[in-house]
Amino acid sequence: MPDHPLSIDPTSDGAKYDVMGVGNSLVDVIAHASDDFVEREGLLKGSMTLIEADRAVSLYHSMGTAVEMSGGSAANTMCGIASFGGRAAYIGKVADDDLGLVFAHDLRAVGVAFRPGRPEGSQRTGRCLILVTPDAQRTMNTFLGMSSWLHAGDLDTDAIAASRVVYLEGYLFDRDEAKDAYRVAACTAHDAGRLVSLTLSDSFCVDRHRSDFRSLVAHDVDVLFGNADELRALYEVSSFDAAIEAVRADCHLAAITNGKAGSVIVTRDRVIHVDAVPVERVVDTTGAGDLYAAGFLHGLTTGRLLEECGRLGSIAAAEVISHVGPRPLVELRRLVDF
Amino acid sequence: MPDHPLSIDPTSDGAKYDVMGVGNSLVDVIAHASDDFVEREGLLKGSMTLIEADRAVSLYHSMGTAVEMSGGSAANTMCGIASFGGRAAYIGKVADDDLGLVFAHDLRAVGVAFRPGRPEGSQRTGRCLILVTPDAQRTMNTFLGMSSWLHAGDLDTDAIAASRVVYLEGYLFDRDEAKDAYRVAACTAHDAGRLVSLTLSDSFCVDRHRSDFRSLVAHDVDVLFGNADELRALYEVSSFDAAIEAVRADCHLAAITNGKAGSVIVTRDRVIHVDAVPVERVVDTTGAGDLYAAGFLHGLTTGRLLEECGRLGSIAAAEVISHVGPRPLVELRRLVDF
Repeated sequence: MPDHPLSIDPTSDGAKYDVMGVGNSLVDVIAHASDDFVEREGLLKGSMTLIEADRAVSLYHSMGTAVEMSGGSAANTMCGIASFGGRAAYIGKVADDDLGLVFAHDLRAVGVAFRPGRPEGSQRTGRCLILVTPDAQRTMNTFLGMSSWLHAGDLDTDAIAASRVVYLEGYLFDRDEAKDAYRVAACTAHDAGRLVSLTLSDSFCVDRHRSDFRSLVAHDVDVLFGNADELRALYEVSSFDAAIEAVRADCHLAAITNGKAGSVIVTRDRVIHVDAVPVERVVDTTGAGDLYAAGFLHGLTTGRLLEECGRLGSIAAAEVISHVGPRPLVELRRLVDF
Repeated sequence: MPDHPLSIDPTSDGAKYDVMGVGNSLVDVIAHASDDFVEREGLLKGSMTLIEADRAVSLYHSMGTAVEMSGGSAANTMCGIASFGGRAAYIGKVADDDLGLVFAHDLRAVGVAFRPGRPEGSQRTGRCLILVTPDAQRTMNTFLGMSSWLHAGDLDTDAIAASRVVYLEGYLFDRDEAKDAYRVAACTAHDAGRLVSLTLSDSFCVDRHRSDFRSLVAHDVDVLFGNADELRALYEVSSFDAAIEAVRADCHLAAITNGKAGSVIVTRDRVIHVDAVPVERVVDTTGAGDLYAAGFLHGLTTGRLLEECGRLGSIAAAEVISHVGPRPLVELRRLVDF
């Protein structure tokens, strides 16, 4: 029996997918960079900035040699779930170009069912220019491109209704059409008796859309993900404990990461601390939060105790920060014994 | 003074570039794969196979999740030279698409002067689907795409004449137009009093074009690169020593790699054995030969003794096989003290 009030019965709910992710479909363009470079380009280390096409060109021009790997926050999470052996699906929008093919391939190659929206207009596939500084922090610069055209009409509502959890990125909130898509996805899930999950994504994203996020967390979100900064930004408090108290009053279940200090799982009745899994050398923190959510959701949708869900999250996050790139390089199911 | 009969005087030859590479411009699409997979796909482990567009699609479809990184044999070598602090330039052909932009960016980002040929027709940028097996061997499947349209008209002959060495891939020999381009490049270099260098690239490529290669090595090539297999294929002998004897009769200078056994540098008068640089863990051998050539050519074009040239080659090769991808991840100049 689950140790929380959210009803998932893996044995008899007839779900086709464990988790359906909806998010911005991006290919990451990853380069190492010095702190000087990040400062000279006027970037705020550790944050995500939305950029337009011309800025994407000029920033790319000044970046060093790069590697291209599929990314996108919710897509990374779905790949993590598949890597644990879970059934994941994903909705997002790419163009009919090289990077769109790469994005679709990398989802399908790990067994994520990709339900692409219909390409529109002349936009290219979105990309995220990521600068990894020597401290392993990533600074992200996102050109949304085709991904920003995601709207409610792109949603496969039957597939959402057949998923135990629909998982949505906070990043979607930066565009009104995507916000509508979010609401339709959440409604569809709830009407089908499924759960709705949100990740806050980025503290600046939370700052930009605080009232929307607050209202959603209080009314529509069953499972909330975020890190300590994002949660503090959501409730405009300076202490982590105060933020934890606020979210427990607001939300059935929250799983909040806090870097090396591990994570905290919050329900109305309980606050559970989960240790981080130690890593020999942190190489690139890109995808840490995405993969924590993957482990947690995989545990949740397969009926595990919350402590175990958190532990799976820690294991997945540890794997992804030990190498360059936002998705696991090994099968996560091999790192756990179940 | 150089300890060989090839005249390079770094102090007064008025060269603008140390080395000009000419090759197939490819983006590598790198995935881990099992031995079973390689066998099931009918591939010969460790070799390079040319594939057509439809096979590129079907093989990619069956491959696992992949990483995209700029590649191309001669282009990798030029990046290695730049990474040592040398002045490298490169001629090759890409399409006006995402991967073409990636290829051009990654050359320029490390300081290689890219002289692209003019895009023609509707071909896309070439790509090399690389399967890395658990033994770190790479099996390459090359869809040449736009790169195969390289012809003599694409060559910047002024830039070739201003380069100490022009460096050409054996892979170019798979297409007649590229073979013509090779001959024009070699002629241009010799007319300007420069050196011509060739890498044999692949033993099957040597098998396919043996008589052309033999004639070139005997008449046009000043500095020959290859590995033991390729050299045995060139002279159709089964022993490495016999191949070494054959090449010393044929060619002023050859540098032949032999895996863990290191490399052998051959002139008319001398045979010099150079140790490999030990690597903690060999992860992916892609680019090993390309980077050996980079170190060697950097040494040669900066007036070093042949032993030192070989040592620089070994250092560069060791760096590139210790990680995924065909180009150095650190500045090679930092690995040597000069």
